[in-house]
Amino acid sequence: MGKVICAGLGPGDPDLMSVKSHRAITGARHIAYFRKAGRKGQARTIVEHLLPDTVQEHAMEYPVTTEIHFSDPEYNRLLSDFYDQWANRLEEIARTDDVVVLCEGDPFLYGSFMHLHSRLQARAEVDIIPGITGMSGCWTATDQPITWGDDVLTVAMATLSEDELTERARGTDALVVMKIGRNLPKLRRALRAAGKLNDAWLVERGTMPTQSVQKLTEVSGEVPYFSIVLVHGQGRRP
Amino acid sequence: MGKVICAGLGPGDPDLMSVKSHRAITGARHIAYFRKAGRKGQARTIVEHLLPDTVQEHAMEYPVTTEIHFSDPEYNRLLSDFYDQWANRLEEIARTDDVVVLCEGDPFLYGSFMHLHSRLQARAEVDIIPGITGMSGCWTATDQPITWGDDVLTVAMATLSEDELTERARGTDALVVMKIGRNLPKLRRALRAAGKLNDAWLVERGTMPTQSVQKLTEVSGEVPYFSIVLVHGQGRRP
Repeated sequence: MGKVICAGLGPGDPDLMSVKSHRAITGARHIAYFRKAGRKGQARTIVEHLLPDTVQEHAMEYPVTTEIHFSDPEYNRLLSDFYDQWANRLEEIARTDDVVVLCEGDPFLYGSFMHLHSRLQARAEVDIIPGITGMSGCWTATDQPITWGDDVLTVAMATLSEDELTERARGTDALVVMKIGRNLPKLRRALRAAGKLNDAWLVERGTMPTQSVQKLTEVSGEVPYFSIVLVHGQGRRP
Repeated sequence: MGKVICAGLGPGDPDLMSVKSHRAITGARHIAYFRKAGRKGQARTIVEHLLPDTVQEHAMEYPVTTEIHFSDPEYNRLLSDFYDQWANRLEEIARTDDVVVLCEGDPFLYGSFMHLHSRLQARAEVDIIPGITGMSGCWTATDQPITWGDDVLTVAMATLSEDELTERARGTDALVVMKIGRNLPKLRRALRAAGKLNDAWLVERGTMPTQSVQKLTEVSGEVPYFSIVLVHGQGRRP
């Protein structure tokens, strides 16, 4: 009997994965990872120099990412079928072997693996190895603490409405916003309305060699979906 | 010339520190760590089996932890002097050698190192190695994802007022509350008022061999200051 091991990879620098994930990956017989069809995939890229020659790879290609809005029932049906099929396949592999599923960041914070995890309950043994979150990689890249003392930290997705983003930005000390991409103009308006635009940073690929850290007011043009916007807390500091 | 390396240790299991922190610690000539006077210290305990025989240790003992309330000017004065002195000492060591400062969890999320980091600006080269947060260790220990889809996550300290805790618990999808200890009765009342008491979990020592995961309604008696209360988000799941 094998098991399904979900290995958190951390924010991008392979040296920032845990010793435990590193050991699971360098000793793996099977690895599986999510990616957009036609791409190599960020998770696969992170482990490029760690895989044994003999490893069997299972690329789990999303049938849809942002081409259909998530409120469309078709989006839900396509993804649900996709997760069902891969849960079956991983269960099958785990009957005889361990299989390591690569997960960027921390698997239980807005990850995709959780949709397999819920389907595999009582069907396979599943181990979760946590990881350093992408947002931690990003606030570390700014070289400034995200929270001090009793600061309240809010983590919100830029897919929320402008009104809700405004209210969230206004009512918190420290703010992390994920899923940026085409939502940036809306988020910018919300931060301006909340009086926090001038304190916001945009970080792309935090901890990776190509990382970029900018004041949001200095950003022009399009930004990746997986970039992160931060407003640092200003709490108590003896 | 050396530098000051702040090594995030993660939530407690030594295998959950990053490869980069592990390398810094196993090769260290000097390590420094915070602890309460008279204790071994959690950070020091985590690295017990990793330190070279020849390492020089610098225990940074807080002059006060919770004996004086943080609103007392004396608290501020004592801690400020303490951080000043250790910033001087670390700067001195870094003139000739690297010194690795051990930091539980993730250094830039409610850590103590940030008070040295701000004092060392322009005085020493400082590297921050992020870590898996204590809260991530705790939600992984519950074996349930903390956030799904577009859930909003709020991280708040139990030191806040009951009214503010109630409002924060009511106005979020997923909730993490830290600094519990004697604040538990207040937090319990706030969660009850927000209709979330039955969904709350208390996790102590997440990822450590002695970890404890309980529904908050089943907890009786006192709990440690560093335990964490969680309410999982229930967002979109195809």
